[in-house]
Amino acid sequence: MPDSNLIETVRVELADRSYDILIGDNLLMQAGEKIKSVLPNAKCAIVTDENVAAIHLEALQENLKAAGIEAKPIILPAGEATKSYTHLQTVIEAIIEMRLERGDAVVAFGGGVIGDLAGFAAASVRRGMNFIQIPTSLLSQVDSSVGGKTGINSPQGKNLVGAFYQPKLVLADTAILNTLSAREFRAGFAEVIKYGLINDADFYDWLEQNWDGIQEGGEKRIHAVATSCRAKAAIVARDEFEAGERALLNLGHTFGHALEGITKYQSDVLVHGEGVAIGMVLAHAFSARMNQSSPDDTVRVTNYLKKVGLPTDMSGLRNHVKTADQMMDFIAQDKKVSRGNLTFILTHGIGQSYIANDVPAAEVHAFLTEILES
Amino acid sequence: MPDSNLIETVRVELADRSYDILIGDNLLMQAGEKIKSVLPNAKCAIVTDENVAAIHLEALQENLKAAGIEAKPIILPAGEATKSYTHLQTVIEAIIEMRLERGDAVVAFGGGVIGDLAGFAAASVRRGMNFIQIPTSLLSQVDSSVGGKTGINSPQGKNLVGAFYQPKLVLADTAILNTLSAREFRAGFAEVIKYGLINDADFYDWLEQNWDGIQEGGEKRIHAVATSCRAKAAIVARDEFEAGERALLNLGHTFGHALEGITKYQSDVLVHGEGVAIGMVLAHAFSARMNQSSPDDTVRVTNYLKKVGLPTDMSGLRNHVKTADQMMDFIAQDKKVSRGNLTFILTHGIGQSYIANDVPAAEVHAFLTEILES
Repeated sequence: MPDSNLIETVRVELADRSYDILIGDNLLMQAGEKIKSVLPNAKCAIVTDENVAAIHLEALQENLKAAGIEAKPIILPAGEATKSYTHLQTVIEAIIEMRLERGDAVVAFGGGVIGDLAGFAAASVRRGMNFIQIPTSLLSQVDSSVGGKTGINSPQGKNLVGAFYQPKLVLADTAILNTLSAREFRAGFAEVIKYGLINDADFYDWLEQNWDGIQEGGEKRIHAVATSCRAKAAIVARDEFEAGERALLNLGHTFGHALEGITKYQSDVLVHGEGVAIGMVLAHAFSARMNQSSPDDTVRVTNYLKKVGLPTDMSGLRNHVKTADQMMDFIAQDKKVSRGNLTFILTHGIGQSYIANDVPAAEVHAFLTEILES
Repeated sequence: MPDSNLIETVRVELADRSYDILIGDNLLMQAGEKIKSVLPNAKCAIVTDENVAAIHLEALQENLKAAGIEAKPIILPAGEATKSYTHLQTVIEAIIEMRLERGDAVVAFGGGVIGDLAGFAAASVRRGMNFIQIPTSLLSQVDSSVGGKTGINSPQGKNLVGAFYQPKLVLADTAILNTLSAREFRAGFAEVIKYGLINDADFYDWLEQNWDGIQEGGEKRIHAVATSCRAKAAIVARDEFEAGERALLNLGHTFGHALEGITKYQSDVLVHGEGVAIGMVLAHAFSARMNQSSPDDTVRVTNYLKKVGLPTDMSGLRNHVKTADQMMDFIAQDKKVSRGNLTFILTHGIGQSYIANDVPAAEVHAFLTEILES
């Protein structure tokens, strides 16, 4: 399929912090013009990683230059280890060194790691500069580009340090995703599927029927990304600071984070989207076990994730994940716990997820024991 | 004068971030009860410094314990050097180690350094925990307790890294100020005088007449602190993120920060309030030189600051401050510069300060040359 000229716009409604997400093929080639339309006089610090810089940085810099935008890059190592205090300080000091002011902009040009780190730096320099995101992975286009969660990892846990900080503009170039590995694309796609499973059965049906078209690119991919962003934006607009409903976005994440923790965030073993895929199957299976949903839905979800090429059980992780106790240790540490009670996102069926407070830890333990130790 | 039973309440109106400042003698002895009234179930991390801890920590801990509040202290070295990346990380990791959640609270128990650092930590742990301030210096009671500016210093400049983050409650114990040194009390009082000079000539008159009573303590001191908080709260309510009017609070600060920078923040040479005192005289003198105000006002302000025991010129700093160029280097670096133009807070007279954009740097330079080099 040829590149599409379609540009979809998703408005994230957050009062005076509202902003647009533009989604379309080759938006990178319009970056300067689009940034100028929201911030006419801003200079830019481009925060990126070595991998993205090698393929795309020159194009972005030339485009900004042509639009008359002064911009300098800050290039970091790729990978989760970059979301650290050390790199945060490096980025902040580099931005200050450039003598940028509050009215200037930090541009995050990369995946979730770069978006989270650069966003926290933008929030912190002079107590808040303008922030622009150009997410280059499918995961960051449909997840981190909506909702303003920024931050770094603590040695004690992932994403424990950060800020809620909204961008002024997000440019999601859907053609840039052609440069991702198949594994990275699939992992991001797990989050796309998640939006169908949370509260949009029609979207889930559409996704089941259009996996090939989405892989190919063009309008179907644009539709998948835009629908995902719109779904997340609607939830975030109602609950910006995660006081309630926003927790729905954690479908599959409590189990997924535990798996990521146990496998020590080694991306050769498990990446985030793969953990979420397994976690979504577990959330459906546990819901069925608690008589909240039909086992048929678990089967349907499992089959689709398999078709996409995502893992659906822990069989590939048995060198790491051995006991229910191991899992429970991570689940209880998860920052979404509230006053010691377990909160899970369960489901009444496809597109019917809900927040379950006070889930008995013993039931979760028994469920995991059956899977892992029998 | 005996301690007063009066408690003044200043409401800081910031929509869903509104909060109360309570001002009164011996409020420390009601801390548990007051915290419980806004956060019934919160556990607390008390961030404090060695000096404050030595005198007051036991009393606070006993009071919280009596109210049934679980609390642990994090004790840091006293002094400006504590507002660093290193100590920020120490505080954040200690809070996480205590397994506190978003609904728990970080209590800043100390002066401005502790308030700024603890506030930034509270803003950053889990992207925002509850924050409570118990400011123990006059400066922090009338300045840092209002307005939500938190942060640390960069090696490249003071307060360049941080967040706007509002507390849930501020307890300003005016009797605790009796344990300050006379120099520290006077330095904080410079900021009290500033509120009169900005936009309240009646308050300035009252301050001139009541310096003895304010030093003594009780109702007059409570009135001085409450009026200062109210003045700052009114400005902050109209301009939370310093887009305009809030800059008025920088009266005396551009010159003052330059003096602090040149003397390398050595508190034996110059403390913040002393820099502000000299800066306020310079702002009045420069305004008179620009034909904006009467030289009589400069004389009146100088005389009152002298009576209080504050420095009013740079004569005590001549080992450090030698040339106008030295000053200009710091003034142009100041983070309140906007697009390279100099913005100063000037005055049309006592209680009539205003924001002057586009002040010609050459005029400032000539003014400082006359004072320093002639």
